[in-house]
Amino acid sequence: MAAVTIWNEYRHEREDEAVAAVYPDGIHATIADALADEHDVQTATLDDPEHGLTVDVLESTDVLCWWGHDAHDEVDDAVVERVHERVLEGMGLLVLHSAHYSKLFKRLMGTSCSLQWREDGGLERLWVVDPGHPIADGLGAWFELPETEMYGEPFDVPEPDRLVFTSWFEGGEVFRSGCCYRRGSGRIFYFRPGHETYPIYEHETVRRVLRNAVDWATPVDGSPRTFGHRERS
Amino acid sequence: MAAVTIWNEYRHEREDEAVAAVYPDGIHATIADALADEHDVQTATLDDPEHGLTVDVLESTDVLCWWGHDAHDEVDDAVVERVHERVLEGMGLLVLHSAHYSKLFKRLMGTSCSLQWREDGGLERLWVVDPGHPIADGLGAWFELPETEMYGEPFDVPEPDRLVFTSWFEGGEVFRSGCCYRRGSGRIFYFRPGHETYPIYEHETVRRVLRNAVDWATPVDGSPRTFGHRERS
Amino acid sequence: MAAVTIWNEYRHEREDEAVAAVYPDGIHATIADALADEHDVQTATLDDPEHGLTVDVLESTDVLCWWGHDAHDEVDDAVVERVHERVLEGMGLLVLHSAHYSKLFKRLMGTSCSLQWREDGGLERLWVVDPGHPIADGLGAWFELPETEMYGEPFDVPEPDRLVFTSWFEGGEVFRSGCCYRRGSGRIFYFRPGHETYPIYEHETVRRVLRNAVDWATPVDGSPRTFGHRERS
Amino acid sequence: MAAVTIWNEYRHEREDEAVAAVYPDGIHATIADALADEHDVQTATLDDPEHGLTVDVLESTDVLCWWGHDAHDEVDDAVVERVHERVLEGMGLLVLHSAHYSKLFKRLMGTSCSLQWREDGGLERLWVVDPGHPIADGLGAWFELPETEMYGEPFDVPEPDRLVFTSWFEGGEVFRSGCCYRRGSGRIFYFRPGHETYPIYEHETVRRVLRNAVDWATPVDGSPRTFGHRERS
Repeated sequence: MAAVTIWNEYRHEREDEAVAAVYPDGIHATIADALADEHDVQTATLDDPEHGLTVDVLESTDVLCWWGHDAHDEVDDAVVERVHERVLEGMGLLVLHSAHYSKLFKRLMGTSCSLQWREDGGLERLWVVDPGHPIADGLGAWFELPETEMYGEPFDVPEPDRLVFTSWFEGGEVFRSGCCYRRGSGRIFYFRPGHETYPIYEHETVRRVLRNAVDWATPVDGSPRTFGHRERS
Repeated sequence: MAAVTIWNEYRHEREDEAVAAVYPDGIHATIADALADEHDVQTATLDDPEHGLTVDVLESTDVLCWWGHDAHDEVDDAVVERVHERVLEGMGLLVLHSAHYSKLFKRLMGTSCSLQWREDGGLERLWVVDPGHPIADGLGAWFELPETEMYGEPFDVPEPDRLVFTSWFEGGEVFRSGCCYRRGSGRIFYFRPGHETYPIYEHETVRRVLRNAVDWATPVDGSPRTFGHRERS
Repeated sequence: MAAVTIWNEYRHEREDEAVAAVYPDGIHATIADALADEHDVQTATLDDPEHGLTVDVLESTDVLCWWGHDAHDEVDDAVVERVHERVLEGMGLLVLHSAHYSKLFKRLMGTSCSLQWREDGGLERLWVVDPGHPIADGLGAWFELPETEMYGEPFDVPEPDRLVFTSWFEGGEVFRSGCCYRRGSGRIFYFRPGHETYPIYEHETVRRVLRNAVDWATPVDGSPRTFGHRERS
Repeated sequence: MAAVTIWNEYRHEREDEAVAAVYPDGIHATIADALADEHDVQTATLDDPEHGLTVDVLESTDVLCWWGHDAHDEVDDAVVERVHERVLEGMGLLVLHSAHYSKLFKRLMGTSCSLQWREDGGLERLWVVDPGHPIADGLGAWFELPETEMYGEPFDVPEPDRLVFTSWFEGGEVFRSGCCYRRGSGRIFYFRPGHETYPIYEHETVRRVLRNAVDWATPVDGSPRTFGHRERS
């Protein structure tokens, strides 16, 4: 059982009726529901003080999930710095969908994290390209999301340490949809599904992937570990 | 200008009229034609003595292209061993299409190299996922092959050092179509396109990729280099 | 708790008094002792029927440890093939010291696996270069082996997925001493320490590393998983 | 022939007599001298307007070398952003010695880039662990620097795409001294040697490595290439 904190921008759901209809309590609540049976889950949102990511919250978090879209620029740089350091110390991180463009993910990757996109509600089929990976545990050869926003290559990220999923879109695109990285002592998983206007996080297989990814990203001894007290001139 | 040797099984073209119609002089001749303006090209086939891959031929080869399909098992183990050693010493290697199942490639990868397949003549679109890679030099965002045999994931290979292309197939599959590896001092590029019943190697972009890949795989000083004379107890 | 099988060549200990003095019951017995509190351990040796690695044994093994040195060539190719396939299906594998030159490891790596060596009984200091890795769990910044056989670079292996340890030798060499790989669905850890004439496997930190590595290499659900039923033409 | 720009902090040489004695015209001048026979070289320093790294300079640069130590914080964020973007577009980058702690390198790596250090003037031996790599072209198995500042592991960087050198220090440490990365379309090489109080950049093998690294990092067509015009919502 890991201590999981789910961070959500939580703006769309309060400002847009169509989104509110899909995620009435916020995307974070739906994700929390997917994880709550197995983990100790709390949530935090952009408009909380310090975005809900105080030193205390981060120090007691094993794995952080991050969902953002429209307000990346409103995330305070000091909080980004604080979360970044915790990842390097060993906190796991799940970066979801449009959070590829968050300050945090761009900072961890060192690249633009740009990609192609089209909001067309088309079919996405996610292929498991690494069947032995723990994040694919219990999945079949592929699974489908009947309506999604399309993300297409090239995705400007460093070569993933492990590529778990690659998406096929009916409109003709492909995308590396499940990418594993290690930075410092922390494990990072980028997972593409999750647009706010589709009930992606209600999808059973997506929920299974989230649970698997939390297990994978949890530090080995269930607590933060530091990269150390290194210094130089 | 590199010294390139193109190896072809050269059976389909002599035994099957449909294939002979597409590649009347053999697949090797068509590939040779794509490279001859820029490189010093020779060819070799399965039914040549020592499969045309004598010590002398290999020692004077900078980059070897390998196409095989139906007769992988007829390739002599001693020749596979010899080629394998030359790759480790620094000779570049292009592994084409169904050669994923050659003794040589399986031996270099250490995995089964298995994949899914369907011979349906459907459309393949190859996306450039690594636009800055030399093998993608001069290409656009993607290119299409109107009729191909489908290859699908999972492709049982080690994580590529660099993934250059990912294919989208109209039947619903994806595939890592351009994979770079280094083994010993040699550079290896697996390139998916190339079925014997379609004129894939007449396609201008495919030919450009082959030329780029030869440039990329050529040892730096244009001559073989050895990993060394290391020994142990 | 994983099902661990420890394979040992078990020749030196029966033929050489100096080795027998260090490992009176065989290297496998000493390694088994290091793991037995946490795992279900069995052993197998070269001179057992089928080298002790029958289909039944392998099917019930989560993680296999391999130690060999003088008799690599006596290992039957059919058994190597069988073990290789089980690794691709998901069985974990620990490759110890001179087993870098085993048929099995060379086959999984696709390279010569050659290195430099000198049997001088000098000091080795192993630095943890990836402090957040599960295999380094509980270790300090480094640990020392007062007397070892030296292994030096270049070590002809593919770039490790993760490099956990790098050794410093008092004679002036360095070596990548802890290398992680994934092949098919199996996790592989090469760990350098372990010469037969020094009591390396009695060393507390080495034993801790072995336990950590077994944990890391165990398939997620504690049972073999297959890469699948893929086929091609 | 590539267009190379050598950037140097250029403070130590003007403020410290001991450094001025080693590099009377600045570290940049000594590096420029190593490259000038083969490349079109210009220099730029911290105290130039815009640190000498204007849009025009960067747009006409194929490979940038970066040396900094004491004044990382004085480098303007807007210039760092500009250089970062040019690397992602395809400009090669050589990061030298203490520049591991530059804003630019930390931003490209996404980690703390911390390490251990000791200024003791001891012997460093650099082992070539990847003999087939172009950056090792023409080198032997190792080379030595008789007096250096020590850098030790753990070095908090992402796993290198290719590790070319590993250093042995007489004081008992090891270090990954030559690390290759790709970010966006740009090639990055971190090279450890180069302290300001030792004539490291006069060393013939170091100069050979710098030339090799410039060749390796030069974009294929000798001009900048962009990752593209990708956008998303």
